[in-house]
Parts: sequence; C-alpha cells; structure tokens
Amino acid sequence: MVFFIFLLACAAAASTGIIFKPGQWYASLVKPRFTPPNWAFPVAWTVIYLLLAWAGYRLTQLTGSETVLALWAAQIALNTLWTPVFFGAHRLLAGLVIIVLLWLVTAAMVVLAIRLDLITGLILFPYLAWLCVAAALNFSILRNNR
Amino acid sequence: MVFFIFLLACAAAASTGIIFKPGQWYASLVKPRFTPPNWAFPVAWTVIYLLLAWAGYRLTQLTGSETVLALWAAQIALNTLWTPVFFGAHRLLAGLVIIVLLWLVTAAMVVLAIRLDLITGLILFPYLAWLCVAAALNFSILRNNR
Repeated sequence: MVFFIFLLACAAAASTGIIFKPGQWYASLVKPRFTPPNWAFPVAWTVIYLLLAWAGYRLTQLTGSETVLALWAAQIALNTLWTPVFFGAHRLLAGLVIIVLLWLVTAAMVVLAIRLDLITGLILFPYLAWLCVAAALNFSILRNNR
Repeated sequence: MVFFIFLLACAAAASTGIIFKPGQWYASLVKPRFTPPNWAFPVAWTVIYLLLAWAGYRLTQLTGSETVLALWAAQIALNTLWTPVFFGAHRLLAGLVIIVLLWLVTAAMVVLAIRLDLITGLILFPYLAWLCVAAALNFSILRNNR
C-alpha cells in the first residue's frame, strides 16, 4: 500500500514528461556532445521512478527515517517542478536553479539513507548519478543558447 | 531543520504560481459565481503551505506516521503538477483528474493524521476545504469553456 502511494507521487512527476514534451524547441537547441539520445530519457526515468518508490517504501520500514522521508517529499516536488519550467515555460535559468536544489536535496537524502540502510542508499544512487547528467545538460544548454 | 525541508517542498509547489500565471487566458474564461477574487488565491495558498510544512514537521515527531508521510509526499507532487497543467498547458480535463486525485490523497492524509494526533489533523483541514473550492472551480470551468 505505502509502495503504491510513493508510486503515485512518482507518477505525478512522470506525467510532466507526457504533458510537457521536448518537441521542436528542444530539438532546435545547441546541446553538448554528452547529451544522451532522446530514447534514453524515458527509459532512465522509468527505472529511477520505480527505484524511488521502492526506496520510499523501504524507508518507512526503518526507524529514524523521518528526515529522509521529508527529503523524499522535497525531491519529488522539485522533480515535478523541473519539467514544466524547462520544457513548458522554456525558463533555462530557473530550470538550473531547480535542478541544483534537487541535486542537493537528493544528495542529502542518499547520504542519510546510506547511514540508515546501505541497500536503500544504493537503490537511490542511480537517481543521483542521472541528476548529475541532467544538471550538466541544463547548464550547458543555458550557456550555449542565449 | 525538518520543518524547513517540508517548507522547501511547499516552496517548489508555490513557485508554480509565479512561473505559470493565470493571465489573460484565465481572465477570459467563463467562471462560476462562487469563484473567489484573484487576491484570495495567493493569500489562501501562503497560509496553507505554512500549515502544511508545520503539519509535516509534527508528523515526523509522531510514531506510526510513515503512511501519512508518504501521503504528504504524494500530495505535494500532485499539488506541484496541477498549476503548470492548468495555467501552463491549459489542459482543463487533465487538471480536473489531477485535482480529484489530490483531493483523495489529501482526504486520506487528514483522516490518518486525525487518528494519530487531532491537532495535526486540524492544521491540515483548511487545505482540504480549499481543495473542495479549487476542484469545484476546475470542474465548472471545464464544463462552461468547451
């Protein structure tokens, strides 16, 4: 049951990718060499959202996880915010501010999760790694598309 | 500290109201008689977000609050999603689906919170009441603006 509540939160974040599509605007941007191919984004995010819901469920089974659960809530709100701001409003600088905040919140969540339970921390690790790529991509696009 | 993490999550949700403004599009819609005046929305949401962060903090101090904290995370993701979908993408039907889900998740959160701690449940109550108004407004706007 708790797993599905976290999955619903992830579904809310994921639905931004369906409603605010990259489209012609994204295709026309100057992008760096390390830009992943378009198909990689939905694949990576599907895996990450499933891992996030699983990690959320595991956190509720651990004592002392209150702060990590608060960080889980903050990251999903920031995650849901980023796509409409970047792909919907085309606000590159606001997108960068949001994704840097998202990275910091997620990094804190991973560090605290590892201290509670190593496996939960490892489950969250691909998310943090992918956010490094996404933040670097946002930064490069901002710099090269004035 | 935990209070400020929840406040950051609320700030992410609140910032959608700054980035995706109602503007001319909202002004031109046929709206029902019970539509609150424009100034009421930022006032109501500011109070509600502060109460939400406070309730989140109180929940972390209670034992057995894991499921309510998962619901807290789900509601802030759905809350962050609604504004860009409604005011950004102008998707009235998708907005209604999201706000009905948000109402259900919030109602479940309030019921479980009341059972854990009456005061926390009461702190969350204005949010649920305001969502009734917002959902009715979304429904009426959808019906009268084909």
